[in-house]
Amino acid sequence: MIHTGFPETGPSLGEVGEAGVIQAIVTAAPSTINGDDAAVLTPSTPNSRVVASTDMLVDGRHFSADYTTPYLVGRKAVVQNYADIEAMGARPLAALLAISAPPETPVAVVEELARGLGSMTQEWASELVGGDVTSGERLVISVTAIGSLGGNLDALRLNRARPGQRVVAHGHLGYSAAGLALLESGVRIPASLEPLVQAHQVPEITPGRGVVARSAGATAMTDNSDGLIRDLSTMARMSGVGIDLSSVAIKPDRLLEDAGLLLGIDPWEWVLTGGEDHALIGTCDGSAPVGFRSIGTVSRQQGVRIDGKEPAYTGGWESFA
Amino acid sequence: MIHTGFPETGPSLGEVGEAGVIQAIVTAAPSTINGDDAAVLTPSTPNSRVVASTDMLVDGRHFSADYTTPYLVGRKAVVQNYADIEAMGARPLAALLAISAPPETPVAVVEELARGLGSMTQEWASELVGGDVTSGERLVISVTAIGSLGGNLDALRLNRARPGQRVVAHGHLGYSAAGLALLESGVRIPASLEPLVQAHQVPEITPGRGVVARSAGATAMTDNSDGLIRDLSTMARMSGVGIDLSSVAIKPDRLLEDAGLLLGIDPWEWVLTGGEDHALIGTCDGSAPVGFRSIGTVSRQQGVRIDGKEPAYTGGWESFA
Repeated sequence: MIHTGFPETGPSLGEVGEAGVIQAIVTAAPSTINGDDAAVLTPSTPNSRVVASTDMLVDGRHFSADYTTPYLVGRKAVVQNYADIEAMGARPLAALLAISAPPETPVAVVEELARGLGSMTQEWASELVGGDVTSGERLVISVTAIGSLGGNLDALRLNRARPGQRVVAHGHLGYSAAGLALLESGVRIPASLEPLVQAHQVPEITPGRGVVARSAGATAMTDNSDGLIRDLSTMARMSGVGIDLSSVAIKPDRLLEDAGLLLGIDPWEWVLTGGEDHALIGTCDGSAPVGFRSIGTVSRQQGVRIDGKEPAYTGGWESFA
Repeated sequence: MIHTGFPETGPSLGEVGEAGVIQAIVTAAPSTINGDDAAVLTPSTPNSRVVASTDMLVDGRHFSADYTTPYLVGRKAVVQNYADIEAMGARPLAALLAISAPPETPVAVVEELARGLGSMTQEWASELVGGDVTSGERLVISVTAIGSLGGNLDALRLNRARPGQRVVAHGHLGYSAAGLALLESGVRIPASLEPLVQAHQVPEITPGRGVVARSAGATAMTDNSDGLIRDLSTMARMSGVGIDLSSVAIKPDRLLEDAGLLLGIDPWEWVLTGGEDHALIGTCDGSAPVGFRSIGTVSRQQGVRIDGKEPAYTGGWESFA
């Protein structure tokens, strides 16, 4: 079952006012920390470092009532920010939400959004702890994730891939792009392909995988937010290494093949250039950490290759295109 | 000298692309921490707690090319977020910037904004450590501040004002509202009143005052972002106390009086309802901490009064008005 659409009725933000909007958010995503000038978080690990990341989502650009719901937008906003925290090998502690919306927006939109944020932050054993609401011409959401990097192992950085390491991945590759293509095509989407649409609406990342990888010997990690080849090229360039992917390990699965046939699109394009999967891609010594699969190796020869050849597709997300 | 206006020429965001925009920001506000999936911050105090706050600013709503410059918007965005961190008694460590802007926006706008953010974060011995850039129909800026609460004293909370305490303030009251009124009036602004306009463009808060107040025995604190009476009413309600202000201590100074005469406005309205001064208002035992002045006392009788009477003005900022 695919859910789309934003509430269009009920009291508006302008009618309930700022205090009413904040009340709706706090009720939908309760927190014992929220409610002062700033949120105070006590890390559970002594001397832990703070990890922070932020993402801005604009209505019509990053999401649309045609393809998703406010609840799912809220859940996705958490995943994409927490994936950045996990990609450092850190544990997400809390999220902050800043939202601007036209005064005529139904409160139900913000309520659903906050419920989505609240439910996903809970799945990561964290909370929505603060934020800001204001009016604006468009619905714009900015979510900031705060994480904690315990212990004295280094963070998982883009510049720490080393020749001889294994390249590992957690999460689907290409699902989000395929799901968006299905939604945009206007075709009747067969039930068998709904997982692709759902992966576009809310990518599935298991909480704690980055933390596990760091303790299991990973050194570099990122999430494929802009496209697999593009993000791995950044890692390779910053590490001064090359990355050799195995075509067998990353080749489109049955769902992607079927969607490709239905839409007349080569599914490899989704795998190699589709962003927003927020899959964790890292490099490590030894075997792949639990939850990760091997997809290639790190070499001395700069660049990113598949079976030793140039990738067929190398594009990706461009913010100002 | 009053500076206003946004750059309107030069290469656009769409022309230089996402990588070019990020490069412009990083060059304008350099950081050794920036550039990975998330920023990692190492607090200087052992076992310190993390403090986080976020604010969203919308072009035409929170700022306008008629009244300010991108450089000043950047500086103000830092002050208003860091004031929230200081109001907890914590030290700001870093800021994150999320920005959405139309592709035709000159890169110079973002560059100036980043220079403003960079310069003000430096004045607080901190850095702009990360962010997100994306396209949108309007310029929208979201700044998140991360701070560190060292030691084991409690944070300065809204619910910790206690009867018998002194009410203290750091920073001007009413200047920002008076400055905005001058700008909006269209009158030729006399040089003597420029400090009011400058206080609206960038409120002046001395770094570290909240930290000092916390170690000097303050227990409750907030910043007057929405209006003095409104913000103190929140503190009084949450603490279950009353606040008695002294009219002599908060009365409009010569600049506010002059601006009031020029515009035909009672300057008390600016003092009591004008937000955006981001002055730190706290309660403490004993004498006022260095940098703070006494403006009243905490009593058992709920409500906020001036010389024992209802304030003449009690309104304030309303996000969805």
